Amino acid sequence: MRKAIIGIMGPGSGASPTDLQNAQTLGLLIADMGWALLTGGRREGVMHFASKGAHERGGLVVGILPSDDDTHTSEYVDISVKTGMGSARNYINILTSDVVIACGMGAGTASEVALALKGGKNVILLTESDEAQRFFKGLRPDLVQIAGSPEEAIELTKKLLAVPQIFHKKM
Amino acid sequence: MRKAIIGIMGPGSGASPTDLQNAQTLGLLIADMGWALLTGGRREGVMHFASKGAHERGGLVVGILPSDDDTHTSEYVDISVKTGMGSARNYINILTSDVVIACGMGAGTASEVALALKGGKNVILLTESDEAQRFFKGLRPDLVQIAGSPEEAIELTKKLLAVPQIFHKKM
Amino acid sequence: MRKAIIGIMGPGSGASPTDLQNAQTLGLLIADMGWALLTGGRREGVMHFASKGAHERGGLVVGILPSDDDTHTSEYVDISVKTGMGSARNYINILTSDVVIACGMGAGTASEVALALKGGKNVILLTESDEAQRFFKGLRPDLVQIAGSPEEAIELTKKLLAVPQIFHKKM
Amino acid sequence: MRKAIIGIMGPGSGASPTDLQNAQTLGLLIADMGWALLTGGRREGVMHFASKGAHERGGLVVGILPSDDDTHTSEYVDISVKTGMGSARNYINILTSDVVIACGMGAGTASEVALALKGGKNVILLTESDEAQRFFKGLRPDLVQIAGSPEEAIELTKKLLAVPQIFHKKM
Repeated sequence: MRKAIIGIMGPGSGASPTDLQNAQTLGLLIADMGWALLTGGRREGVMHFASKGAHERGGLVVGILPSDDDTHTSEYVDISVKTGMGSARNYINILTSDVVIACGMGAGTASEVALALKGGKNVILLTESDEAQRFFKGLRPDLVQIAGSPEEAIELTKKLLAVPQIFHKKM
Repeated sequence: MRKAIIGIMGPGSGASPTDLQNAQTLGLLIADMGWALLTGGRREGVMHFASKGAHERGGLVVGILPSDDDTHTSEYVDISVKTGMGSARNYINILTSDVVIACGMGAGTASEVALALKGGKNVILLTESDEAQRFFKGLRPDLVQIAGSPEEAIELTKKLLAVPQIFHKKM
Repeated sequence: MRKAIIGIMGPGSGASPTDLQNAQTLGLLIADMGWALLTGGRREGVMHFASKGAHERGGLVVGILPSDDDTHTSEYVDISVKTGMGSARNYINILTSDVVIACGMGAGTASEVALALKGGKNVILLTESDEAQRFFKGLRPDLVQIAGSPEEAIELTKKLLAVPQIFHKKM
Repeated sequence: MRKAIIGIMGPGSGASPTDLQNAQTLGLLIADMGWALLTGGRREGVMHFASKGAHERGGLVVGILPSDDDTHTSEYVDISVKTGMGSARNYINILTSDVVIACGMGAGTASEVALALKGGKNVILLTESDEAQRFFKGLRPDLVQIAGSPEEAIELTKKLLAVPQIFHKKM
């Protein structure tokens, strides 16, 4: 039976303390809702702290790894999907997530937000970066929502899950 | 905490009745062992029946889909990973599976067995095809094992899981 | 003998008349320099007009298609690489281009710029979007350069090609 | 203007002297026909010798690399497409080649033949392996042709190119 999968995207080494705290809170709230958590799988930054949060509440954590082994996989990942594709796996993160939450911002996160918007998928931004908000809102005002806190991001996620989303293939 | 993931590869529309029965038995035995099952995710053939078997015993089923949506996803898949990569996702199946069991044989299955051998990964063949056994045994006698039944495949899997495998990157 | 490959990334259906004109000029200047042109390969927008420009000057055009057939391939593409991976091919565009020029801006283009920056690769922006310039300059001021015209973009490209670039794998 | 692309697939380090000689002859015959040559791009085995043959006759060589850089790229490759996807790039080799010739046999080559057959694409086998011929002929007798020499492989290629092929998406 298909589980709802919520993807948390965010920086690895460049994450701020606020990003890490938000990530952990998002992880535990997602577990509490009974949703599966999807991250980029590595033992670093937002991926790692979101996984930790979900794990501590008994949630299921799916990590989509860029690598072809588990050398850098977070110990809080339950299902380690090894793609061996590097950053091309960012597209799988987006396709697989029913809702995408960007927690913090960096080049990798920006690529994931952009790939989601390209496919017509909703994205929730939880980031302190005004430039990111302005840029992505400008690209697709209909698809980008701004959250001020992890709790607000979860409220927005609930609403998005209630409406079946269609991923528009635009090549 | 990383779950062991056992991949069942096998034909979709071309599966024989024996293949389907073997797939379902493999699925339930994998669930009974507490391992996660990985399949190609579609509602057809070996993928579908292995997923059904695991589901009926409360196992966790990970489907790695070739498509970018769930139109053809088996209802027994819990975690639907949408890759949008077509048959290139066969490589992810191999990288992600701790042990690979080929149940039946077809062109797609053959590609998965070959990709596993290319990377130095053990493969268990549960197939009636003599040509397949001879061909793959000839390619890598050290990595290919022949099982005569689902039960025997599971016994071989247990032994392989006991020895940490290394995926040898050979480009 | 490895040819230098210059990638022109830009919107398909959302390209402005200025984007299309810039793309065509970039294509012909790239051909005049003896470089190969890389685009996303489709018969639309910046991809198509850059290919047209290069073709008219006898340049070699490599198209990296998201699809697995040539239904939507530009007639100006000489080498049609069919990936069947959808937007995951954007990463191949970046890895394969010695220098990346973003001509115009859209969600797909943004993903390509972001993937390039993630890997530590230089990007030249030729776009009227202030938000894009500010956002990407803010992400990686060391890697993003702004060009005011196709001619300026080519001058910057020459300088970048003169210094061997290293693609930094950051997973 | 789309060039016809002929893919030569074959072992790297495991290639026999006959395989290497056949590869080089295939490369030069392909160049003489005015077709582009596609290989896996590395400086080893069948890939390298086919590229060498084509290069010596002034042919265009496209290398689809598994890596994300050119450390192991053959010096006879003109267009180096860096995928960063490991063996998942084998699928791109197949999708991009108008005709696939397997020269020799190994695990990687077997995966490419199997992926081609999975998609309904014609394959020409130029290999001394009886097991390979029997196995692949058994899988898809309608799609597999056996060549006894490079010259015969080229004759078969001409016939296949004369009939427009359709790649059947079978997920």
